[in-house]
Order: sequence, then C-alpha cells, then structure tokens
Amino acid sequence: MLNKDELDRVIVVLVAARNPLNIGAAARAMSNFGFLRLRAVNRYEVVFREARSAIGAAELLQNAEECAGVAEAIADCSLVVGTTAVGSRQIEHPVHRLEEGGELIRAHLGSGTSARVVLLFGSEKRGLSNDDLSYCHWLMRIPTREEHISMNLGQAVAVCLYELARGEAVPVVANDPAQATAAELGRMESALLGALHASGYIKPGTEAATEEKARRLIRRMRLSSEDAETWTGMLAKMQLKRRGERAFQRR
Amino acid sequence: MLNKDELDRVIVVLVAARNPLNIGAAARAMSNFGFLRLRAVNRYEVVFREARSAIGAAELLQNAEECAGVAEAIADCSLVVGTTAVGSRQIEHPVHRLEEGGELIRAHLGSGTSARVVLLFGSEKRGLSNDDLSYCHWLMRIPTREEHISMNLGQAVAVCLYELARGEAVPVVANDPAQATAAELGRMESALLGALHASGYIKPGTEAATEEKARRLIRRMRLSSEDAETWTGMLAKMQLKRRGERAFQRR
Repeated sequence: MLNKDELDRVIVVLVAARNPLNIGAAARAMSNFGFLRLRAVNRYEVVFREARSAIGAAELLQNAEECAGVAEAIADCSLVVGTTAVGSRQIEHPVHRLEEGGELIRAHLGSGTSARVVLLFGSEKRGLSNDDLSYCHWLMRIPTREEHISMNLGQAVAVCLYELARGEAVPVVANDPAQATAAELGRMESALLGALHASGYIKPGTEAATEEKARRLIRRMRLSSEDAETWTGMLAKMQLKRRGERAFQRR
Repeated sequence: MLNKDELDRVIVVLVAARNPLNIGAAARAMSNFGFLRLRAVNRYEVVFREARSAIGAAELLQNAEECAGVAEAIADCSLVVGTTAVGSRQIEHPVHRLEEGGELIRAHLGSGTSARVVLLFGSEKRGLSNDDLSYCHWLMRIPTREEHISMNLGQAVAVCLYELARGEAVPVVANDPAQATAAELGRMESALLGALHASGYIKPGTEAATEEKARRLIRRMRLSSEDAETWTGMLAKMQLKRRGERAFQRR
C-alpha cells in the first residue's frame, strides 16, 4: 500500500472530459483509493463545475485545479503516464500492461521524495490525442478483451488507481538524482527546437511533426534535473551560434 | 488470464440496482473484461430495460436474465461470493480482500468444469441485505480507504472483474468432486429447517433468525453435490420420524 506522502505525489489529469458524471465518478474513485489531487484540462468550465456534487468527493472536487493545457497540468511532475485503449492508432510510445505500469510508477515514487507522477486520461470519445501523448514518458493499457477495448472513463480511473494502490510501495532511495520535471523538459524542448530551426533542420510544413518527435525523444531519455539543465544550456548556445553564423553568412 | 469456458462460468448478479446508468456501466465493464453473463434481481423492471443502451454491451444486456429473488439467481452455482464495503454492520461471514478473493474464485473455477461462481453486488444505497448475504459462502472487500469506503456500483464491478481476470487461471483438476449448487444446498436447508421445526428446536418468533443461521451454517460446510444429497435425505427422514413420534405421543 502507498503511504500518504506517496499518494500525494500522484496527480490524476483528465483531458477534455465532457460528461460531468464521468468527472464525478473519477473523483469518487480517487477518493476511494486515497488519491486526492485532480487536475482538469478543459475548455468547458461549466462541465467541470457540474461535477462538483460527486458522492463523498466534494472536497476533492473543490480542490481540483483547472489548467489551460497539458503542459501546464504536468509542469511540476517528473513522470507522465498516458492511458490508452490501444486501438488501430499507431502508437509511438512504449506501452505497458497496467500491472507492470503500476510497478514502474511505484518504483518512480520510490526514486526520491520529489518524484511526482501524472496519470493522464483522455476524453470519453477519443481518448488522448497524439499531441497529448507526446507529453508522456510511456503508456499504460488496461487488459480488456479485443472485442471491446474501450472503457468508461470513471471505470478506467477506478481500475488504474486500484492497481496502483494495491501493490507494495518501493522505499524511497535517497541517493537517486532528482528526475527532471515536465517544466524543465519543456524548456529543453524549446531550446532543442530553437536550435533545430536555426540550423535549418526543420523543413517548412514539418514543424508540428518535428515538435512531437522532439518531445517524445526527450522523454525517452529519462533525464535528471541537472542533466536537463545542462542540455538546455548547450542547445541554447547552439541556437545563438547558428543565428550568429547565418547572420554572418548573409552579410 | 481466464479462458472462455472459465469466463462463462462466472455470473454477475446485481441485486436491487436502481440506477439504469449503473446497470449499464456494470454491463460495459463485464463486456470489457469478457464476463458476459448478467442476472438482475429486481422488482423495478423498467429500470433494467432503460439500461439496455450501454455502450458496447447491448448484446450482453439483451441476454441478461431477470430473476425474482436471490435464490433463483444463484440456483445453478456452486460458489456465491458477496461484495461488501464492510461498514459498521456486523459481518457474520469470512471476508477476504479482493486480491485473495480473486485467487479463491479462480481456484474454485479450476476445481471442476461444472463449478460455477456468482459475484453478488448490492444496491447503490444499501449494498447487500443480511438476507442476501446469508446466501453467500464468503465476502470480498475492495481495499478502499477508511474515510471513504463506499464505491460506485459500476466502478466496484469494474475493479472486481479486473482483479478476477488479471490473475493466473488454475488448471481444472478433474478428480475433485463436484461442489453442491445453490439449488442443492437450498433443498438441504429446507430439510434441515423442517427437521428443526418438527423437533421443536425453533422457538416461535425466531424463525427468520434461525433460517439465516442455518443458511450460513450449510454454506460454511463446502459440501459436494453427493454429500448435500445424503444430508438432505437424512434430514428429511428425521423430520418424518419426529412427526411420526409426535403424532404417536399425542395419541
């Protein structure tokens, strides 16, 4: 079982959930299993307000944070895990079965007291978009049968949190370096894209694809805070250097 | 993972569920995890009809059976497992954590190809009544936190079926004697109560309490079909004998 501190370092993020009943159900399951930190990325403010009546989870919903985008919702976290039904869509990420995913998450929580994990859930209709997925380190799949893979949002949250709470916690190892947060990786990503732009690596029309590719690439590296900062500094320098050179060439 | 035959020998019984959305949600989770046999004990026929639209579970709901009472809903099953939040109510049954319960159920499914299991879920408001519980061999509890133990019905079904489907199946051992079905135990119970009545064991006013006590007593014995039949025959004989004696004494 996870202790209070570990539970507090897990954040559930609902992206574009539309049905207030589902948001309420997700909040109730969170409260059942002791995960009290909910964030919602949602343009439909009213939907979220309507959900505030979920049985037994009023306080949790009251404390829920509304975020403008995924980047904001995950900024202070060092591991971002997406949930997916893995349909026909081509998946570019490593996908773990829920049970294995739960072990990895508990191990991450045990890697240091500043390690924070986001569980990202998509909308009822479409799940997570490719853009949402590009913020994830890896994905987790609930083992449903092939004939009917798509789960109800509230039930998917319940099953994931049950599995996460069920297993043995991993004791915190103090000497692991702190993992980079999503905000730190975001800065590195900006620096990388800047350097790629400056170098002419990015062809016109491929900006969006390259951006997603870069985001996934960086998340696969599992950088410490310190290493992400080093990279960011190096890439920022390259960007400036290339700009200087090109300015020089043009003259 | 359970195979098709094992999945087919698990029956979900919803007792007095009132909200059609919850029945639909339960059906959807069943379909997600491959459990396709639903029975509903319900006086509110309309409620059940309204649920027939659950996403991806239309066929399952179409094939669902409506039963007049718990006894009818479990008659052909040899293991009846109740689900409970275990609140303040005094519980007379053994209670297993969900994980352990899942193992016991898989072991029962492996005890013979005629072994059938019922998972019994109560209503949203009150859960299972003491009368419902008296039909159960044992109870299973989802490990929610003490401050908020009561789960949404659809989510409770999802979590239980996930846990049941998750574990390794136990290969069927052919030489285990077939366990008595609920119908066979019901006949033994009638014979026992008849014998107790005839003997004067049951004091006026204690009928209901004795009935529940007898039901639990019999379920704790884990009888084979054959042994249940032997007992039924013996008890029926005692009943007749006592009646005969009393008739004689009165003369």
